[in-house]
Amino acid sequence: MTENKRIFSVVGGDLRQAHLAELLADDGHTVFAYALEKHSFSDRVTKSYQMTDLTRRVDCVILPLPVYGDSDMLNTPLSLNTYAVEDLFSLFPTGQTVVAGKADHALFEKAGRSGVRLYDYLEREEFSVSNAIPSAEGAIQLAMQELPTTLHGLDVLVLGYGRIGKLLAKYLTALGCRVTVTARKYSDLAWIDANGYSVMHTRDIDGTLGVYDLIFNTIPSPVLTAPRLAELKKTCLCIDLASKPGGIDFTAAKKLGVRAIWELSIPGKVAPVTAGKIMKQTIYNIMEEWGCHA
Amino acid sequence: MTENKRIFSVVGGDLRQAHLAELLADDGHTVFAYALEKHSFSDRVTKSYQMTDLTRRVDCVILPLPVYGDSDMLNTPLSLNTYAVEDLFSLFPTGQTVVAGKADHALFEKAGRSGVRLYDYLEREEFSVSNAIPSAEGAIQLAMQELPTTLHGLDVLVLGYGRIGKLLAKYLTALGCRVTVTARKYSDLAWIDANGYSVMHTRDIDGTLGVYDLIFNTIPSPVLTAPRLAELKKTCLCIDLASKPGGIDFTAAKKLGVRAIWELSIPGKVAPVTAGKIMKQTIYNIMEEWGCHA
Amino acid sequence: MTENKRIFSVVGGDLRQAHLAELLADDGHTVFAYALEKHSFSDRVTKSYQMTDLTRRVDCVILPLPVYGDSDMLNTPLSLNTYAVEDLFSLFPTGQTVVAGKADHALFEKAGRSGVRLYDYLEREEFSVSNAIPSAEGAIQLAMQELPTTLHGLDVLVLGYGRIGKLLAKYLTALGCRVTVTARKYSDLAWIDANGYSVMHTRDIDGTLGVYDLIFNTIPSPVLTAPRLAELKKTCLCIDLASKPGGIDFTAAKKLGVRAIWELSIPGKVAPVTAGKIMKQTIYNIMEEWGCHA
Amino acid sequence: MTENKRIFSVVGGDLRQAHLAELLADDGHTVFAYALEKHSFSDRVTKSYQMTDLTRRVDCVILPLPVYGDSDMLNTPLSLNTYAVEDLFSLFPTGQTVVAGKADHALFEKAGRSGVRLYDYLEREEFSVSNAIPSAEGAIQLAMQELPTTLHGLDVLVLGYGRIGKLLAKYLTALGCRVTVTARKYSDLAWIDANGYSVMHTRDIDGTLGVYDLIFNTIPSPVLTAPRLAELKKTCLCIDLASKPGGIDFTAAKKLGVRAIWELSIPGKVAPVTAGKIMKQTIYNIMEEWGCHA
Repeated sequence: MTENKRIFSVVGGDLRQAHLAELLADDGHTVFAYALEKHSFSDRVTKSYQMTDLTRRVDCVILPLPVYGDSDMLNTPLSLNTYAVEDLFSLFPTGQTVVAGKADHALFEKAGRSGVRLYDYLEREEFSVSNAIPSAEGAIQLAMQELPTTLHGLDVLVLGYGRIGKLLAKYLTALGCRVTVTARKYSDLAWIDANGYSVMHTRDIDGTLGVYDLIFNTIPSPVLTAPRLAELKKTCLCIDLASKPGGIDFTAAKKLGVRAIWELSIPGKVAPVTAGKIMKQTIYNIMEEWGCHA
Repeated sequence: MTENKRIFSVVGGDLRQAHLAELLADDGHTVFAYALEKHSFSDRVTKSYQMTDLTRRVDCVILPLPVYGDSDMLNTPLSLNTYAVEDLFSLFPTGQTVVAGKADHALFEKAGRSGVRLYDYLEREEFSVSNAIPSAEGAIQLAMQELPTTLHGLDVLVLGYGRIGKLLAKYLTALGCRVTVTARKYSDLAWIDANGYSVMHTRDIDGTLGVYDLIFNTIPSPVLTAPRLAELKKTCLCIDLASKPGGIDFTAAKKLGVRAIWELSIPGKVAPVTAGKIMKQTIYNIMEEWGCHA
Repeated sequence: MTENKRIFSVVGGDLRQAHLAELLADDGHTVFAYALEKHSFSDRVTKSYQMTDLTRRVDCVILPLPVYGDSDMLNTPLSLNTYAVEDLFSLFPTGQTVVAGKADHALFEKAGRSGVRLYDYLEREEFSVSNAIPSAEGAIQLAMQELPTTLHGLDVLVLGYGRIGKLLAKYLTALGCRVTVTARKYSDLAWIDANGYSVMHTRDIDGTLGVYDLIFNTIPSPVLTAPRLAELKKTCLCIDLASKPGGIDFTAAKKLGVRAIWELSIPGKVAPVTAGKIMKQTIYNIMEEWGCHA
Repeated sequence: MTENKRIFSVVGGDLRQAHLAELLADDGHTVFAYALEKHSFSDRVTKSYQMTDLTRRVDCVILPLPVYGDSDMLNTPLSLNTYAVEDLFSLFPTGQTVVAGKADHALFEKAGRSGVRLYDYLEREEFSVSNAIPSAEGAIQLAMQELPTTLHGLDVLVLGYGRIGKLLAKYLTALGCRVTVTARKYSDLAWIDANGYSVMHTRDIDGTLGVYDLIFNTIPSPVLTAPRLAELKKTCLCIDLASKPGGIDFTAAKKLGVRAIWELSIPGKVAPVTAGKIMKQTIYNIMEEWGCHA
C-alpha cells in the first residue's frame, strides 16, 4: 500500500480517528481531517474546516466508529459542531468510496440512494481479531488497577472462548494465574484443553464459582445471575466485557456486595494509537480487495 | 457418561483401537473386542473370536480409523483374519449405532440399506482439534530426532495456520525457535500477529526462504515447489504434515539434495494411548448428542 | 506453621503491615496490632492502643518495612502518634524475637544492648524473589497506563537481568513485545539467550537505542545517560525500577523531552495484600529456621 | 571475535569437536584437525595426520570433552590411533594456550610443568547454562519417544531446580504438562512459584508420588529410593539426568517393574552441532578474557 500514495478524508470520531489520520500521513498519503478541530495535528495532516470540501473526490472517506452519535448526527466528540449524517452523504460525489463503523440498514440505504460505495469495517473479521488485543490488555490493566493483589497466584475464570476470551486466557496464564475457561461448543472445549487451560462447559458452572478471585465475562447473555453471584467470594472481582445486554446482573451484584465492572469500547480508551493502527490496516485491506483507485 | 454403564463392541483397527477398548473398560463399560487377536488385553476386555457375535445389540459398535484396509476389507492390522466390510454390516441388528472413521458414500449407503445408524467421528470438529495435539508433538519429536542441532535458536517457517499450524507455532516458540507463520485469510494473518509470531502472506514467500533451518508444511497443495526448494539452505529440514497430495515436490527435493519428510497419521504412531483417549471422548460426545440408549 | 498457633505483635507500617496482621489471623494465630489505628481491622485482630503492652512476651514482634520513618522514629503512616524506635526496644522482654525491614547497624546494636533477637527480613533471598512479582506486574501496569498503545507489538529493552529483569522479560514476551535484555556476566547472557530473548552486553548498547518504544531500567548505576537518552525515539517511555541512585539521568531526560518515570517500592503500592502475604511467608521461614517457640 | 582471525588446533574428541572445527572455520579462522581422521571435513579445515605438528604455536589448542578416554589416553573416538595425554603436552611450545574439558588435578600439574596455559571450559558457568538447553530438549525428546501418550495432559514432577530443571519445567509447561518442581532452598522455592509451577520442598515428596506420569530427576543423590519408587503408577516413566551417582535406585526400579532410564551427556548425542557451537562461544569468551594473541 505504501508505495501507492492515496488521498483520504478522515471525518469526525475520537482520538482513534485522529491518530488514524496521522498514521495515514506517516505512510505518505494525503490526508484531510474534518470535524476534528479540537485535536492538534502535525503539519502533515490538512485540517479542513468546511464540510462542503467533502464534495471533492478522494480515494476513501473514513467515517468514525461508531458512525452515529446522538440520533441521526455524526459522532464528533472532537468537533465544536454537529452534522447530520444524511447531509454528509448528499455531499459525496457519485461512486465515492466511504468506510464507516457500525453502519445500520438506514445508512446503507442512504449510500445506495447517493450512489456511494459504503463499507462497514466492523464487519471485517481481521478488525475484530486485532481489536481483541487492546481489549484483552485493557481488561488486564483494569484488573491490575482494581485488585489489591497481584494477578500472579489468582484463580481466574474466563466465561466464553471467543476472540477476547482466547487472548485473555493466554495473557492471564503467562502472568501466573490458574485459568479456567468455559465454552459451549465441543470444538471450543477441545481447544481450551489443547491450550492448557482448565476447561468447563458453561452449563456446568453452578456450584463451582466460590473458588475464583477474578472473573471475566465475554458472553453477551445473562451468565452471572443473582444465584451465581451469591456463590462468589467477597473479594472476587467481576469484569464484564460483553456487549449489550452484558452478562452480569449488576443490580444483584450491588445488593450482594459483589464488585462488578462493565467495561466497553476498551481499545479507544486505553490504546487509541493502536486502535487507529488497526483501523488503518483494515481500510488498506478493504481498498486492496475493492481495487480502489482514484 | 461414566455413571451410565454401556456395552461397546470394538472391531478391528490398530493400537489406538486396542487402547480405546481398554479405556472404555477403565470407565466401567462392558467391552467386546473383535478382530484384535494379536493384542493382549487386560481381563476387563472380553475378546470375541466370532464375528457372528456382532448380531447381538450393543450401545455402540466402534469401527476403526480408517474403516477400510485393502479395497473393501475392514482395516485389521491386529487380526489374523480378513473381513469384508459389507458382510459385517449384514450382521448388525436394525437400528444399531455404529461409528467409524473415514466412512465414504458407499458405506453410508450400506448403512442405510442395513438400517444402521452410522456416524463418522472424523467429521467431528473436536476430534480434529484434539488430534492436532499428538500431530504437533509428533512433528516436533521428528524434527528433534532428525536435526543435529537443538530446536532452540532455529529460524522456523510454518506454512498454514490451521489446527496443527496453530499448535506447532505455539510449541516451537516455547522451545526457543523464531517462528514465522503464513496464511491467506486476513483474519488468520491478524491471529498470527496477535499470537506474537512473525507473519507473512503465503503468496509472498518467494525469495524469503533462504533463512530457515526448519520448515513445516500443513497446506495440502503444492507450496514447496522446485524453485522454492532451490532457495533453501542445504541444512534446512522440510517436514510435510499435509494430507494428500501434500505440499512438497519430493522429486525436486531429492534432486536438489533437500531433506524432506512426509509424515502422516502421526497420532496413531507416536501416541496411540492418547489417540485412543481422543476417540473415546469423541464417541461419548456423539452418544450424548444422539441420546443413545441400549 | 498453621498447625502451631502463635502470638504475634504487628507494630506500625503501611497497608502491607495491616494486611499481614489479617493474614496471620486468617491462619489462626493470635495477633495484636499496634500503631495501626487508622486501619479498620476484622474482629480477629486485637487492636492495641498502648505500646506499653509490648512488654508482654509474644512469639514474634513484626516491625515495618522500612522500620524507620523520619529520623529515629518508627515508620507509622497508619497511626496518629509517633514513637521513637529506641523507646520501643526498651520495652521488649529479654530474648524477644523481633523482625524488621531495612534494619541498619544502629538497630542491630540497639537489639544487642536490649537482649533482643533481631532479624531483617529484607536480607532473605526468597523475600526479594517473591517481591519481584508485584514489582514486575506493577511496572507493566504503569507502562499500560502511560502508553497510548498496547504493549503488544512494541520493541522493549530491559536493562539488567536480576530478579525483576527476569520476570519483566518473561511477562513482556508473553504480552507480545519483542524483548531485548542486557547483562554483563557471560552466564547471564547465556540465560537470556536460553530463555529466548534477544541478548546484548550492557556495554554495547550505544547506538542501538533508537528502535525501542519502551525501556525498563533495573541497574542501580548511571546507564541511561544524556547521550544515550538523546538516541531515543520521541515516543519512547523510560521506566526506572532501580533503587538509589537509579539509572536514568532525569535532568537530561527532562531537557530532551524524554518521558522518564522513577518508580520505587511498587509492591506496597499496587498489591499490598500480596506484599503482606510475602512478608508472612518470609516470617514463617525465619521462625522455622530459628526454631521459635513462645 | 570474527574480525580477528586466529589459528586453532582441534585435537581428538567426538562429533561435537568435529563440528566445532567446522564452525571455527566458518568464522574465518585457520583450523587444524588432529586425531579426527574418521570424520569427513569440508575444505576449510586442514586435517593434520602428524601429532608432531602440534609443536607449532597456535592461538589455542582445543582438547576434547572429556579430555581423557581410557586411563591416561586422549579421548579419540573419531581417530584410528591412540595418544597418551602426557606425550601431547610435551609437544606444546612454552606459553601455549590449551583448553580442555574435565581436566583433573594431574592435568593442571602437567600443564604447569610444560609451561602451558591450561583452561577447563567445563568450569565456565555460561558453558553449563548453554548446555542445559540441549540437555533439556534431549530429555523431552526421550520422553516423547518412550511414552505411548502425548506429553500434553501429563502430570510431571521435576526433582531439582538447577539449570536443567529450570528449562525442563519451562518446556514441559509450554507443551501442556501440569508441572510440579521440588527444591530445598527457600529462594528456589520462591522462584518455582514465581514462574508458575506447583512447588514442593524436596523433603516433602513422600506419599505424593502416585499421581505422576513422568518424573525427571536432576539431583545427584539418592532421591527416588525403593520406597518412593514403590509409590509410583505402573505407567510412570522415570528419567534420571543427574551425574554420578544419579538419583534413582535402578535395582529397585527393575524389581518393582518401574521404567527408569539414566541418560547422561545428552548434548553430544542429540545435538552435536549445537554442542560444538556452545564450545566455540565459550572458547571465544575465554580468549577474550585472557587477551589471547598469537
